[in-house]
Amino acid sequence: MDIKQYMTEVGQRARNASHAMAKADTAAKNRALTLIAAAIRRDADALRAANKKDLDAARANGLEAAMLDRLTLSDKAIATMAEGLEQIVSLPDPIGEISNMKYRPTGIQVGQMRVPLGVIGIIYEARPNVTVDAAGLCIKSGNATILRGGSEALHCNQALAKLVSEGLAGAGLPADAVQIVETTDRAAVGEMITMPQYIDVIVPRGGKGLIERLMKESKVPMIKHLDGICHVYIDDKADLKKALDIGFNAKCHRYGTCNTMETLLVARSIASTVLPELAKLYATEKVELRGDDEARAILKGYAHLASATEEDWSTEYLAPVLAVKIVADVDEAIAHINKYSSQHTDSIITEDYTRSMRFIREVDSASVMVNASTRFADGFEYGLGAEIGISNDKLHARGPVGLEGLTSLKYVVFGHGEIRE
Amino acid sequence: MDIKQYMTEVGQRARNASHAMAKADTAAKNRALTLIAAAIRRDADALRAANKKDLDAARANGLEAAMLDRLTLSDKAIATMAEGLEQIVSLPDPIGEISNMKYRPTGIQVGQMRVPLGVIGIIYEARPNVTVDAAGLCIKSGNATILRGGSEALHCNQALAKLVSEGLAGAGLPADAVQIVETTDRAAVGEMITMPQYIDVIVPRGGKGLIERLMKESKVPMIKHLDGICHVYIDDKADLKKALDIGFNAKCHRYGTCNTMETLLVARSIASTVLPELAKLYATEKVELRGDDEARAILKGYAHLASATEEDWSTEYLAPVLAVKIVADVDEAIAHINKYSSQHTDSIITEDYTRSMRFIREVDSASVMVNASTRFADGFEYGLGAEIGISNDKLHARGPVGLEGLTSLKYVVFGHGEIRE
Repeated sequence: MDIKQYMTEVGQRARNASHAMAKADTAAKNRALTLIAAAIRRDADALRAANKKDLDAARANGLEAAMLDRLTLSDKAIATMAEGLEQIVSLPDPIGEISNMKYRPTGIQVGQMRVPLGVIGIIYEARPNVTVDAAGLCIKSGNATILRGGSEALHCNQALAKLVSEGLAGAGLPADAVQIVETTDRAAVGEMITMPQYIDVIVPRGGKGLIERLMKESKVPMIKHLDGICHVYIDDKADLKKALDIGFNAKCHRYGTCNTMETLLVARSIASTVLPELAKLYATEKVELRGDDEARAILKGYAHLASATEEDWSTEYLAPVLAVKIVADVDEAIAHINKYSSQHTDSIITEDYTRSMRFIREVDSASVMVNASTRFADGFEYGLGAEIGISNDKLHARGPVGLEGLTSLKYVVFGHGEIRE
Repeated sequence: MDIKQYMTEVGQRARNASHAMAKADTAAKNRALTLIAAAIRRDADALRAANKKDLDAARANGLEAAMLDRLTLSDKAIATMAEGLEQIVSLPDPIGEISNMKYRPTGIQVGQMRVPLGVIGIIYEARPNVTVDAAGLCIKSGNATILRGGSEALHCNQALAKLVSEGLAGAGLPADAVQIVETTDRAAVGEMITMPQYIDVIVPRGGKGLIERLMKESKVPMIKHLDGICHVYIDDKADLKKALDIGFNAKCHRYGTCNTMETLLVARSIASTVLPELAKLYATEKVELRGDDEARAILKGYAHLASATEEDWSTEYLAPVLAVKIVADVDEAIAHINKYSSQHTDSIITEDYTRSMRFIREVDSASVMVNASTRFADGFEYGLGAEIGISNDKLHARGPVGLEGLTSLKYVVFGHGEIRE
């Protein structure tokens, strides 16, 4: 198989399908999503059989347990995929909305219309549910999609893609609006990220290694985040209960997520009050605390205490480990965050109005919070309905990205014969 | 001079200054703009003297007349720069605005705050007024800027940059918030477009050659457009007067601008009525008409008639030349535009409601118009107050880009101690 030729054909089909998708009405898109959800429920047995082929091959190849777990399509995962599509049906259609329509002194009316981006490329690892979630969001936002899932999940992804295309066709939409890359050859990824004529934006979903590699070589813009080094700063005007609740929740609710706190900053004048109390909570989860000199002095006797090095301030542990630093005040906290944060999510705990406003304004991250757990940085929690990914970049979408991040605003002008004088 | 070392220092100073600019209040930014405008008026003689040095050198180097013209800082240009800054003072400050603040079922309030992008790099050719216009927009939007003007204008740009820094300092803002690159070595541009750690976005202003070169090598996102192949489609339900007014204005109001019509599409059933009338107007300006076979048959006898080849459909003439094609209907017009347009600006002339709505929805360009001249695609005409450039891309800003295009939206969360369950 000539990969370049194959991917060019996939790209051309996607570009053609994108024109039909861009003008598809809401009813047709919702009908397709509903048909796909029904087909997934109807063909649950076949999906599990396809998934078994993938799992057998993966076990034979000695894939590790965590990877096998992500690859597994359980009954619950199948039900969740179908429900996810139905939730997308219930979201408002963003496409075609015209905003800010205003008369100008010349007589023309100028506004902006929300339109699809065109073709979205999704590059992801083992999890087969991404195939359906991403397809659903792209359909609703009027985009065509090229999906390149992990090679371990190929059989399952093929089975799912067949149901998606069937649903599209059933609603009178082009079956090519969602295509999966049918080869496991890695060169296909190289083609995807270098064909801006066919793909308008790439959404990479996966580990830091995958995303770093793509960033280096991509000629197509990406919606992505590399890591989540999130901070909570406990100010000396913090409410102690809120500080303890959030300090514990932001670290211990889940360890492996990008919005989990990785560094705790504590104002010097309340550190000896708040840190020992927090340590009691962390002890229940055996969280390792990596403190600077001052923090270690306060935490002396804590069972899982270690020294923080410079490297810890920019490490995403994704584990029960927390870097702890004592700072003088909100100024030092903001300076530390703007230096070391990955611009994902940072939160201040304070009852002080002016400091809360300064933190919100001056911390340069995708999500900035007052008195809330960093774990809330999530498309569903923010009310976007669903999430295609999270962006740490400042251009285009920033933070959790829902349907709107898959769209663009074009100017529309309603005239009455006006010419420029 | 070690260019890499020099540009790294410029970049670091810009990044540092960007933090102070991001939190600067509206009054300070407006004060800086007002001081700069006053200094430009005060030092008009010195500016002209610096400009004379550049012009003398340019003449000695045999620069062509058009280039010399762009390089010249006339009394009017000096006055216009100062007025431009005062206009920017009168624009609302976009920074800090919080929108869409909503309570979520968990109790948190989620909204979005408009914030600066950080550091903007501007790469432009001879025109010295860009130095002041771009600096003004970046100051108002709370960004730091690195300006790399054409080497021909270095003396003049240095003189202007000195006044800008003086105005910033006078308003208590960092003088480094606007820096010009003080070397004419082309390697400096290579550094700018490969230092994403110091520059968040590049705005290239200049010819297609410059922008194509930058696109190939840039590691920093760009706000740019390559060319403007704009269309007017005269539908068979067009009002004849509107068709003639707009068909003439879109081509002949100015030839060298990116929003000038380059291809005229005419519905077959009215072509023999409208084209001869239009040709009478074009004849007054000696516009060369490059028609397809049908158009040429209708225009037989027109003094400046030529044959259109495939290449003409994707050529930006920037001259009194117009490609003319007969199409069956709005479907063929939309298909032609979506194939050949540079996605800049396209307009339909029609009295038919459904066709106007289809054109607006289905033409995939930054500006789509009904019954208006393509020449209106401009930041000032759209009410943006000023324009840093025009984008043909779909991500981030699209169409004329004003202050808002130099900003980003971050999520802000106001909590009351909420944790994720």
